[in-house]
Amino acid sequence: MTTANSNTPELLKNVLVTGGAGYIGSHVIYTLLRTHKYKVISIDNYHNSFPAALTRVSSLALSELKESSPEPSAQDIDSTVIDVHECDLINPTAVRSIFSSYASKGGIWGVIHIAAYKAVGESSEIPLTYYANNVAATISLLQIMQEFHCTRLIYSSSATVYGVPPDIPIKEETRREGDSVYGRTKVMCELIIEDFCDSIMNDGETNPFQAISLRYFNPAGAHPSGYIGEHPRGRPENLLPLLAHMAVGTVTDPVLKVFGNDYPTADGTCVRDYLHILDLAAGHVIALQALEEGSELNAKVFAGSTSSNGKFKAYNLGKGHGMSVMQIVDAMRKATGHDYKTEVIGRRRGDVPELIADPALARAELGFDAPRDLETMCRDLWNWQVKNPTGYE
Amino acid sequence: MTTANSNTPELLKNVLVTGGAGYIGSHVIYTLLRTHKYKVISIDNYHNSFPAALTRVSSLALSELKESSPEPSAQDIDSTVIDVHECDLINPTAVRSIFSSYASKGGIWGVIHIAAYKAVGESSEIPLTYYANNVAATISLLQIMQEFHCTRLIYSSSATVYGVPPDIPIKEETRREGDSVYGRTKVMCELIIEDFCDSIMNDGETNPFQAISLRYFNPAGAHPSGYIGEHPRGRPENLLPLLAHMAVGTVTDPVLKVFGNDYPTADGTCVRDYLHILDLAAGHVIALQALEEGSELNAKVFAGSTSSNGKFKAYNLGKGHGMSVMQIVDAMRKATGHDYKTEVIGRRRGDVPELIADPALARAELGFDAPRDLETMCRDLWNWQVKNPTGYE
Ligand SMILES: NC(=O)c1ccc[n+]([C@@H]2O[C@H](COP(=O)([O-])OP(=O)(O)OC[C@H]3O[C@@H](n4cnc5c(N)ncnc54)[C@H](O)[C@@H]3O)[C@@H](O)[C@H]2O)c1
Ligand SMILES: NC(=O)c1ccc[n+]([C@@H]2O[C@H](COP(=O)([O-])OP(=O)(O)OC[C@H]3O[C@@H](n4cnc5c(N)ncnc54)[C@H](O)[C@@H]3O)[C@@H](O)[C@H]2O)c1
Repeated sequence: MTTANSNTPELLKNVLVTGGAGYIGSHVIYTLLRTHKYKVISIDNYHNSFPAALTRVSSLALSELKESSPEPSAQDIDSTVIDVHECDLINPTAVRSIFSSYASKGGIWGVIHIAAYKAVGESSEIPLTYYANNVAATISLLQIMQEFHCTRLIYSSSATVYGVPPDIPIKEETRREGDSVYGRTKVMCELIIEDFCDSIMNDGETNPFQAISLRYFNPAGAHPSGYIGEHPRGRPENLLPLLAHMAVGTVTDPVLKVFGNDYPTADGTCVRDYLHILDLAAGHVIALQALEEGSELNAKVFAGSTSSNGKFKAYNLGKGHGMSVMQIVDAMRKATGHDYKTEVIGRRRGDVPELIADPALARAELGFDAPRDLETMCRDLWNWQVKNPTGYE
Repeated sequence: MTTANSNTPELLKNVLVTGGAGYIGSHVIYTLLRTHKYKVISIDNYHNSFPAALTRVSSLALSELKESSPEPSAQDIDSTVIDVHECDLINPTAVRSIFSSYASKGGIWGVIHIAAYKAVGESSEIPLTYYANNVAATISLLQIMQEFHCTRLIYSSSATVYGVPPDIPIKEETRREGDSVYGRTKVMCELIIEDFCDSIMNDGETNPFQAISLRYFNPAGAHPSGYIGEHPRGRPENLLPLLAHMAVGTVTDPVLKVFGNDYPTADGTCVRDYLHILDLAAGHVIALQALEEGSELNAKVFAGSTSSNGKFKAYNLGKGHGMSVMQIVDAMRKATGHDYKTEVIGRRRGDVPELIADPALARAELGFDAPRDLETMCRDLWNWQVKNPTGYE
């Protein structure tokens, strides 16, 4: 492990993060920078994000470094600087030239592929755009990785791959079945990555490519500094950001519409498994370590691989317990002091009553844990929203 | 219906056939030309085919026209001329410019999307190439169709979408589950096309796009003239072409390897549902007619659509009865006089014991029938092979 004080630090590994400026991407990059083991390269087209997120991530990491070690090494300082590329993943020429530019710098060691479109409703209106941006772009990224002998991938998957799950809590072995266009793009990407991991090369050798698919449940909150957070373009789609915007006044709806309170759940509203964005981000650092061939963690993770060549592995990232819409509203009421009014309207097409992770596998094999509680998520979200009522703009 | 003798023929409709030079594509185009209703545009990159196939198709149709009507109209003659484009579907700029070039000629009325890679074994070796060529290229084609307001599609699907079918004969409503990379590319394309058919446009209207997916069982044989037929590049993968090549001497294997004779079938070898390539091709002409909005056939076909907007429909194209490997060998022995030796070896990974279509839906709704029998398939195949021992080369 390279620390600020070690005399012979390992060289920084080049790690490419796609969608680096987005909500999850920015917190993942922050968490990577803090290890001082990686040179982070971000690719984003800012379709749903702002370059400012990356500037803030970088200065946050730098100021934390300086606080913890008064005389940081040049390499540790360098590890807080992000190589930022504005680039659209559906443009293979542009992506290829980024890979090329690192060939003389040791190449790209691994990729964390986070970029995607994610609005369920929109995905059924413009399905081809979703298939092109999520599926075709992933195929193209994998092809370019193969060309450049880059053999390590972490993929941003989602609980949505389970559709309406047959059992709660949801285990990773559950059959995958997308319930929306967005969900189907995630299932297809997993299948494609898995098939690629499974492929036999011309020379009869198995493909050295290894991939870990992280199936996120519901990430929430922000860095406690309030310096980075979630800032989607347009009206927030998800419950927590919507509540934060209502409290801060940037969304002026007088009432929160609750889609159905007649679900088979404790209070009748939908239940989701929320985890803190920094806990989720930490999962990526462990997963990246698990891609180091020859390590104990690597052996452990891929021993239990479900793919035929043992090179693909999927993990749920969730807390393992659920919060209903009403519980979330209450928690945000406490955090913000805002007096939310709610109105129950009909169920929304495509909503699943209950999505709760079985987090046992990630805990046992990765040592993954999501300790931060709902109160912390709401507090950090609110802190971000108050300090940045209009986000990065 | 435009006939050679009608005085005021309807204008020819521009129909784009992708993969037009391939085995199925060439016979489909031949069948389209004979209707004298379409101006056929072929796109092919000749990855697995030869431009000569298209020249032959065209002259075959022209000579048949001249035979049947001594003074054919200029339009009927024109309808036997194919607009041939050498073009790779994974290149959107090239495809777009072909669509563009027809904008001033009434646009492209409909697309029959046949082009794909289809070798099951190879697909597990180079999965990304298959996903790019079959899935990403289909997404791109659909996007270009949307740009050019081209709203009618026939898609070449396959019995492979059923994987190991839970019931025999197989009905269209059977769950889809690809059992190989190739199979998964076909399932994904169907899902993507279906989602596109289902999408709601910006203006709140449903997408006018209509698609018919034809799930082919096992096409075999050739045009009885022996002028066109199946000529894959490289060693034939499928049983019937392999037997034909063995008989004609272009494949010199002393014995035919039979993969397993311990399947739960009558003689223990795998059973497939073979239909004559010209019967299969005829199904495409009916399907194309079914895409004419306002027609009785159109109403009938899409009344029973399984997609939520009623714009997507899938049909099995098969005979509804099965032939085992051993029965095929016997039939080819009769047709060719060649004394095949067989050797039973172990089962081949990915082989499904039995694939037999339930053809009832296509019969009832499209009036589709596949009358030609196995003897005819073998005779026509052998006729082609003898006349063209090295195919189009
Ligand atoms: N937020 C959630 O609740 C959630 C849950 C499960 C899974 N996920 C997945 O996590 C990933 C990130 O989600 P997020 O909440 O951070 O979303 P986000 O929109 O904040 O981040 C996605 C980022 O990818 C970028 N991007 C999209 N398409 C791109 C392209 N073609 N080229 C370059 N950049 C592109 C966007 O500009 C954005 O910065 C997505 O894959 C999403 O499907 C999110
Ligand atoms: N032959 C069968 O037994 C069978 C059974 C079920 C389904 N199908 C499907 O039917 C279709 C045609 O099969 P076929 O037997 O005629 O195969 P084929 O290989 O003879 O024909 C496919 C044609 O598409 C062309 N092509 C492939 N990729 C292309 C690209 N990117 N751009 C342009 N052209 C491209 C090839 O050159 C070839 O001419 C395929 O979609 C296949 O999956 C075939």
